[in-house]
Amino acid sequence: MKKSLNIAVAGLGTVGAGTLKLLAAQSDLLALRAGRPIRVTAVSARTRGRDRGVDLAGVTWFDDPVAMAREADAEAIVELIGGSDGTAKAVCETALAAGRHVVTANKALLAMHGTALATTAEDAGLTLAWEAAVAGGIPIVKALREGLVGNRISRLQGILNGTCNYILTTMRETGREFADVLDEAQHLGYAEADPSFDIDGIDAAHKLALLSALAFGAAVDFAGLHIEGIRHISAMDIEYAEELGYRIKLLGIAERGPGGIHQRVHPAMVPLAAPIAAVEGVFNGIVTEGDFVGTTVLEGRGAGAGPTASAVVADLVDIACGRRAPTFGVPARRLDTVKSLPMDNHMGAYYVRLMVIDRPGVFADIAASLRDCEISLESVLQRSRAPGGVVPVVLTTHEASESAMRRALATIGGIDAVREPPHMIRIERG
Amino acid sequence: MKKSLNIAVAGLGTVGAGTLKLLAAQSDLLALRAGRPIRVTAVSARTRGRDRGVDLAGVTWFDDPVAMAREADAEAIVELIGGSDGTAKAVCETALAAGRHVVTANKALLAMHGTALATTAEDAGLTLAWEAAVAGGIPIVKALREGLVGNRISRLQGILNGTCNYILTTMRETGREFADVLDEAQHLGYAEADPSFDIDGIDAAHKLALLSALAFGAAVDFAGLHIEGIRHISAMDIEYAEELGYRIKLLGIAERGPGGIHQRVHPAMVPLAAPIAAVEGVFNGIVTEGDFVGTTVLEGRGAGAGPTASAVVADLVDIACGRRAPTFGVPARRLDTVKSLPMDNHMGAYYVRLMVIDRPGVFADIAASLRDCEISLESVLQRSRAPGGVVPVVLTTHEASESAMRRALATIGGIDAVREPPHMIRIERG
Repeated sequence: MKKSLNIAVAGLGTVGAGTLKLLAAQSDLLALRAGRPIRVTAVSARTRGRDRGVDLAGVTWFDDPVAMAREADAEAIVELIGGSDGTAKAVCETALAAGRHVVTANKALLAMHGTALATTAEDAGLTLAWEAAVAGGIPIVKALREGLVGNRISRLQGILNGTCNYILTTMRETGREFADVLDEAQHLGYAEADPSFDIDGIDAAHKLALLSALAFGAAVDFAGLHIEGIRHISAMDIEYAEELGYRIKLLGIAERGPGGIHQRVHPAMVPLAAPIAAVEGVFNGIVTEGDFVGTTVLEGRGAGAGPTASAVVADLVDIACGRRAPTFGVPARRLDTVKSLPMDNHMGAYYVRLMVIDRPGVFADIAASLRDCEISLESVLQRSRAPGGVVPVVLTTHEASESAMRRALATIGGIDAVREPPHMIRIERG
Repeated sequence: MKKSLNIAVAGLGTVGAGTLKLLAAQSDLLALRAGRPIRVTAVSARTRGRDRGVDLAGVTWFDDPVAMAREADAEAIVELIGGSDGTAKAVCETALAAGRHVVTANKALLAMHGTALATTAEDAGLTLAWEAAVAGGIPIVKALREGLVGNRISRLQGILNGTCNYILTTMRETGREFADVLDEAQHLGYAEADPSFDIDGIDAAHKLALLSALAFGAAVDFAGLHIEGIRHISAMDIEYAEELGYRIKLLGIAERGPGGIHQRVHPAMVPLAAPIAAVEGVFNGIVTEGDFVGTTVLEGRGAGAGPTASAVVADLVDIACGRRAPTFGVPARRLDTVKSLPMDNHMGAYYVRLMVIDRPGVFADIAASLRDCEISLESVLQRSRAPGGVVPVVLTTHEASESAMRRALATIGGIDAVREPPHMIRIERG
């Protein structure tokens, strides 16, 4: 048996402890599959005494994870601290400077500093592996980087945040409102006490920025993303979506456009028959379009100790086997600095719900606003009547530009009989 | 730039020509991603003159693919001839004996000789790569072998034959009968002139045997598979499936059982909400259950020039990058010789359609036969009435053993009022 791959783990939260459990439970199997054992020689976490359900006998404890990254008896450092700067960044930089491979689940860090870290790693002949940073246990990074390596990817679309997908699924299944379901999700541990990273789309955006870099061989450009969350989705919109044959999902979408790449995270209506519409609850799913392979769909658990540990260990086995690939599919110094296209350039169909006073003539004003912006209506629904009262009117449009749509919505929002700001959700082909 | 990976391609049918087209179309991209160019130095096919839409200038032509495997200026031989023995086998063996890596799309060859070929390759330090042999462009081999490497797989279930899935999907969508839709599929090129390999489940069984070996680290045991095709599926069964909340799919299923592995290919009813039920037409899909990662689903095009070429090229890029992994996930000499469990041991639920004379007392006889074999009924449907005539009666059972079910069906088939052999389809959880 060849000598072991020694590793050190920084951060022993849910994922860190899960990784140690997996390595212990599968040690013989992993030694067989990897051709050498994987041995945890050092760990570091904030609190030393806590029982994490893992045996740390014989493992060196470091109070300072940065010191561990520099000094541990380890070929690879596993960074599971999290956060886009501070300690996590220092751990990764120190590990690479000390000639150690890095495996990380930290999407925030890579979304901000991914290109620089990849360059540092590759210049030193080291691996910076991040399967666990995106879509938990789904091997999407390996699929894009290696499995689909023969393809030019034109479009990638994913449900990348389990918290949002759980909330949207539960809203649909129960008819309840966002705030109510979020509250429940927090009690169940599916949403954080401060849920904004998830529900405002930031977490999905970090992941999309990384997948987009990998799919298009482009430098990570988090600042170029358009990001909207799901706070404004109401039970009424979900009900109308069903009636119109759609399901509402928080999507991350990256696609080639004229002269650049569109990268956007926002709620979207997708056709019920689209594979991504069937990705429910805490599951994640990613649809890719490659020029030779066509459409490929990957689904699985997007978070949690087991799935994320599965991804961390896959990266460790690659290192143990000496399997290497560029961090973002092409050498970091050859990544394109492709332009991220502004959202105004987006072309798509739209769903708009208006709360209007039910009186003759209102619809003529709305229709005129759309016509003035050269937007074609596909359908109009006014289900309820309440003469003189406020009723929902739902429109769907044919393809239009985002800028035209925004102009039209500004005008419509100003119509006296329109009593709330228009509720707009983009329609995607799924 | 490092020196090119020189390759030779044996077989220039749809997939061979598609591979050459992909390599030509993406040559710059592949050189960037792989770190070195991939260059086709030699080809061999039956007919030299034919226009295949690819430029063969500067490429050495071999009339004899075995001679090419021995003599070509190539580090890797791509075997796209097909067939479980004869030339294809000789090409692979000769290539390995000559110290060349082998990339193959040949599931029949590997289902019969996979363990032996893997042992030869690994003993010589060579790669035997087969992503293209299973599920076309879906990177399922890489996912199981590397992406999910940290998991013990308990169950794997797949739609592995696009021809059958196309036929079943079309039957459902149009209400037409099997023979009619098969005829159309042959005209459209989705089914071969001799369709038996596909529709009798052999092709799916070849693929399942390989995935099963990989998932369980077991020697390939094609002989241990239970195989049924889709010839006996009627429009009436498809209609009843819908009514009962199921969809009929030809599934390949491999799962751990007590003391061995169940490996079986047969039509099955899966719940409409199961991800695999949504895999339609020529698409393939594979669901895996891993102990840490949970359920993972991969879907994509299972055949055709582009998707298969995508898989061949992914294997070539692995070779170009020096990325290696054991052929079936663990070293070939360490593959388990796990027992394939006989179908009689299978436990599951069943759908049974009987064509019976509509007269009092018939059902009592049927129910008694089931009771005598200790099989519990879940539901009984008799939709139409035709006193004295023949009507369909549909039963579904709770979990029972295959052997008990077969005994019950033999008795039921012997009842005077039962006018056709019972039509049985297994129900799977999907």
